[in-house]
Amino acid sequence: MGALHEGHLSLIRASRQRCNVTVVTIFVNPKQFGPNEDLDAYPRPLEKDLEACRAEGVDVVFVPSVEKMYPPDSSTDVHVARVSEGLCGAHRPGHFDGVTTVVLKLFNILPADVAFFGEKDYQQLMVIKRMVRDLDVPIEIVGCPIVREPDGLAMSSRNVYLSEEERKQAGCLSRSLFDAVRHVRSGERNCAELTRRIRQQIEMAGPSTIDYIEIVDAETLEPLATVDRLARICLAVRIGPARLIDNIGVDPSAEAG
Amino acid sequence: MGALHEGHLSLIRASRQRCNVTVVTIFVNPKQFGPNEDLDAYPRPLEKDLEACRAEGVDVVFVPSVEKMYPPDSSTDVHVARVSEGLCGAHRPGHFDGVTTVVLKLFNILPADVAFFGEKDYQQLMVIKRMVRDLDVPIEIVGCPIVREPDGLAMSSRNVYLSEEERKQAGCLSRSLFDAVRHVRSGERNCAELTRRIRQQIEMAGPSTIDYIEIVDAETLEPLATVDRLARICLAVRIGPARLIDNIGVDPSAEAG
Repeated sequence: MGALHEGHLSLIRASRQRCNVTVVTIFVNPKQFGPNEDLDAYPRPLEKDLEACRAEGVDVVFVPSVEKMYPPDSSTDVHVARVSEGLCGAHRPGHFDGVTTVVLKLFNILPADVAFFGEKDYQQLMVIKRMVRDLDVPIEIVGCPIVREPDGLAMSSRNVYLSEEERKQAGCLSRSLFDAVRHVRSGERNCAELTRRIRQQIEMAGPSTIDYIEIVDAETLEPLATVDRLARICLAVRIGPARLIDNIGVDPSAEAG
Repeated sequence: MGALHEGHLSLIRASRQRCNVTVVTIFVNPKQFGPNEDLDAYPRPLEKDLEACRAEGVDVVFVPSVEKMYPPDSSTDVHVARVSEGLCGAHRPGHFDGVTTVVLKLFNILPADVAFFGEKDYQQLMVIKRMVRDLDVPIEIVGCPIVREPDGLAMSSRNVYLSEEERKQAGCLSRSLFDAVRHVRSGERNCAELTRRIRQQIEMAGPSTIDYIEIVDAETLEPLATVDRLARICLAVRIGPARLIDNIGVDPSAEAG
C-alpha cells in the first residue's frame, strides 16, 4: 500500500536476492478498509516511494488506479473461511476479503513466480498462503521477518499517526511480546497466563484500547489454551489514532535461551 | 463433468480448430451440487468419455480426484455477486460459488489461453466471464452454441434421467423458446406476455414443475420488462427426475425473419 519503510525495503531486498526481476505494487486498496477506518488518512507519498524503489533497483513499480482495479460493476470476491475469521478478521469485517481479492488480481496481472509478504501482517500472510494453496495459484509465497525500530516497535506506515508521547508508549507492544517469549522459554505454557502478563504490561504503559491479545496455532490461527505446538502470539492495540498490530512466534520445543 | 455428448464434443472441436493443444477436464464437482441434488446419480462413464476424447484428438484429459481438488481443510471460495443471484442461482444456493471456485482452480492448474464453455449453461458462462474479468484471470472465455437433439431438446448429461414419455414431453422446452423468438421477430416486446406464452406451452405438454421462465439482459442477467436490448430467454423446468435448463438469445434490432 506504499508509504514504504524499512520493512517494505526488506521485502524488495529479499526479492532482488532471489529473483531476476522485481516488481513492487503500490495500491491503497479501498476494499480492505472498513467504513470507519483510515482510507482517506492513509499516507500516499508516491514520489518518495518511487525514489526508494529506484534506489533499491526495483525493475517495475505497478501503481494502478482504483477505477482500473474496480470497474463500477465488478462483483467478484475471494473469501477464505476460518483462517480469516479470528484476530483482525473478527474486528475488521470484510477486511480479508478485500485483501485476498486484490492480491489474487495482482497475481493474475503480474505473472510473478514468487511473492514476498511481511510477517508483520501475520494473519494476512497466512490467509494469502491458504488462498494460494486452495485455489492452486502458481506462485510461491515467502514470509519475511518483521523489521523493528530501535526500541522494538514494528515498522508500520501507520506509525506516523502517533504523537511523540504515543510513539514512546507504543514500545510496550513489542516489549511485552519479547517478555512472553522469554516466559515460554523458561517453561510457561499456559496461554491465559501469558496473555494476562502481556495485557498488564500494555495497560501499565498508558491509555490504549486492546482489540485482542491471542496465542494461536501458527498455521491455522486457531486459538490455543496451551503452547503445545508452533504458535504465534498476536495482538492489536489502539494507541491514540493508530491501530497497531504486532506478533511473534513461539516454539515450545526450543531450548531455554 | 463428463458423460460427454455432442455438446461437449462441439467444445472440443472448437478448441482443436483454434488451439494447438486441447485439454479436457472431467470432474463431477461436489461443491456445485446442493444437498438434495443428483451428485450420486450423476452419470460417470469415464472409459467411454476417454474413448470419445481419443477419437476427437484431445491431447490431455485431466481427471482429478475429489480429495486432490478439496483437501479436508480447504476453505477458499470465489463468489460472483449479482450475475450469479437470479435464475438458477436463486434456486440452487451455493451452486455458482462451487462452479467459480472449481473453474478458477482448473484455470490455475492448467495454463490454458482459451477456455470453451457451452451456452446451454448460459448463466454459468456469464458468471465465469464476470469472474475472469473481475479477477484479471489471463484467459479468454469462448461461449459455444447449444447443440440440440433433432426435436430441439438441448443436449444434456441429465437427459438420460428421462423416461421415454418424459423425453418426448421435454421437446416442449425448446419449441416454446423458438416460438418466443418468432414472436419477438414479429414485434412482441412485452416480457410478461412472452413468458406467459412459454409457460402455457410447457404446461400444455404434460406434468412438470417450472422453476423459472425469465427474460434477462444478455450480459448482466438482470430481469427485463421489455425486450429493448440484447436479451436471453432462460428457463429451468423439472420433468420427472430431471431438472432441465434451456435458453435462447433475442435481439430486438434483428430484421423480421
